Amino acid sequence: MINVIGIGQNRENMTLGAIKAIEESDVVIGYKKYIEQIEDLIADKEIVKKGMGDEIARAEFAIQRSLEGQTVSLISSGDPGVFGMANVLYQIVSKYDGVEIKVYPGSYLGAPLHDFAAISLSNILTPLSEIEKKLRYALEANLIVAIYNPISKTRKEPFRRFKQCVLEIKGEDALIGIIDSTYEPPKPTIVALRDLTEDIVNMSCTLIVGNDLTYVQDDKLITPRGYVIRSKVHPLSQNHYEKFLNGEVVHGPNRECEFYPCHYEGQYCDFCYCPFYPCGDSSTGGEWIKGKNVWNCKECLWLHSKDAVECLRPPLEDILEDVEDLKTKKKTLLKLRRACLLKTNPNDL
Amino acid sequence: MINVIGIGQNRENMTLGAIKAIEESDVVIGYKKYIEQIEDLIADKEIVKKGMGDEIARAEFAIQRSLEGQTVSLISSGDPGVFGMANVLYQIVSKYDGVEIKVYPGSYLGAPLHDFAAISLSNILTPLSEIEKKLRYALEANLIVAIYNPISKTRKEPFRRFKQCVLEIKGEDALIGIIDSTYEPPKPTIVALRDLTEDIVNMSCTLIVGNDLTYVQDDKLITPRGYVIRSKVHPLSQNHYEKFLNGEVVHGPNRECEFYPCHYEGQYCDFCYCPFYPCGDSSTGGEWIKGKNVWNCKECLWLHSKDAVECLRPPLEDILEDVEDLKTKKKTLLKLRRACLLKTNPNDL
Repeated sequence: MINVIGIGQNRENMTLGAIKAIEESDVVIGYKKYIEQIEDLIADKEIVKKGMGDEIARAEFAIQRSLEGQTVSLISSGDPGVFGMANVLYQIVSKYDGVEIKVYPGSYLGAPLHDFAAISLSNILTPLSEIEKKLRYALEANLIVAIYNPISKTRKEPFRRFKQCVLEIKGEDALIGIIDSTYEPPKPTIVALRDLTEDIVNMSCTLIVGNDLTYVQDDKLITPRGYVIRSKVHPLSQNHYEKFLNGEVVHGPNRECEFYPCHYEGQYCDFCYCPFYPCGDSSTGGEWIKGKNVWNCKECLWLHSKDAVECLRPPLEDILEDVEDLKTKKKTLLKLRRACLLKTNPNDL
Repeated sequence: MINVIGIGQNRENMTLGAIKAIEESDVVIGYKKYIEQIEDLIADKEIVKKGMGDEIARAEFAIQRSLEGQTVSLISSGDPGVFGMANVLYQIVSKYDGVEIKVYPGSYLGAPLHDFAAISLSNILTPLSEIEKKLRYALEANLIVAIYNPISKTRKEPFRRFKQCVLEIKGEDALIGIIDSTYEPPKPTIVALRDLTEDIVNMSCTLIVGNDLTYVQDDKLITPRGYVIRSKVHPLSQNHYEKFLNGEVVHGPNRECEFYPCHYEGQYCDFCYCPFYPCGDSSTGGEWIKGKNVWNCKECLWLHSKDAVECLRPPLEDILEDVEDLKTKKKTLLKLRRACLLKTNPNDL
């Protein structure tokens, strides 16, 4: 069991659930400053003070201990679903089987948030036109949208407008998380927009509309924020990018290649090997092979689409001066990947 | 002292500060369902179960008891700064002197939130262009914008871009709240954008950019959400709107009037008396006369501007069928006021 805990600015803002979870832990991991803030609660625990930088190391360490049967608390200051570790941990934990994660304060949908807008659909004192404008702009900007006051027995029109906005901007496959607080504990549900009907929503629900990268993993809604996985460059990839740097890589489909088409007719072969490998981001269809520490891109076809290649290739030619840059400029590369993911639509393939 | 408390969905999500504040209270006010959730904490308190509808009655009651020297807790479920009573309470409390308000979970700036976007300025793994797009859309939509990861020693460019976006969209008078968490308790500061310099912001700060209605009251940042104040229609206003309904009210400046110009040369006189009186919203310059329960509009000139009149008059002619409607259609009127406030800019006068 891994508890991901936001302890807040001070003891006053700490929740009872967070305190209980810490007390029940065997191992407590966190940045020195946060560990000091809870020293009185953890006198009998194993304490691991890690620096700010290595989120991945912290997550992997927590997972290992959890797999060994220990209860681990990962400590951060702000809400782990907004500021903290929750998203990265969910991404990394997909490598393994049987690791349970709980987030404090309560997140019932997984780690759906990154930059987000919180918008009330109550039009009792707010004009519907104002609510609709906020919705449209937030969705267009690819902010995650959290909706409160979604509907009531007499107030259904704002909900219909909301659905219409999501349909027009995101399409009927848009992922919607629902947290229904009429249940205790609150009941999470994840649906595609096309299945978001009035009968599954009530005034005690909060709705979360994912952004263009949000995906479902083991019944949780996950929005990847990106993280750097240090890795060697495979010799075949090394070879490909040496040619790429020498201007020897064909633009578009490489029909001369004996393996063409390895994915689909018409595929672009500029990036025969992925320059971002391993991205660790399931939003384009890749996934960890459980228990193997191997990233499997079999379902990710985005990189071979015309749109992706045309967005990626010119800036990549500027960024890469040497094959080593595939390792040393990983952050820059991941930002480029993200920018092109958001410009093209990987789900349209 | 009034504590405004969000108790969360269940005990697990309740903060230690909230529990302590409830325990120190003499009177606990809230909707039945929430009171039941904390029954074990309030056995020795006076308990007032009020229905959902009358926020104003609850606020006034809490204020009276506080003025009598009691400690009062106003209970809601979600964060009172997002879902709940905090904004309305701050608006109403400006009628009185000497009422202290504390919000749980901690709000150090007052009640700045309504619909908002939370955006990280960290561009380590997120392209700056993406961050800038989110900022621009959120500001254009008049969402309140909460910024985290605003700056670091080596990462200043996103902060500069943020300032530029606010300047272009909101102007140099835009109100910015800063919560600096390097202090304990966190230190709140409110500045106009023109005074937001890099030396007063660090990586532990959260910034809040108000919306077009946000104002400062007693060193707190308040965003009005609107509330209905039941009130009689003054006989002179009654008389004016009888003429208005008969089509006898001049459009534009009424230079025939013996009092013209009562405010400024060029003023529009269509609404000699305010159809929204008392709005209770200080964002246009009105304020409560302390201790008198009288709303004073002396500093509010918005209603006499050409822009406001041209936005308000046509829909108002549709809404008002009878002078009584000034009382009975108050919610519709307040929505019209809000819509025109956001279309025109009351601060440009």
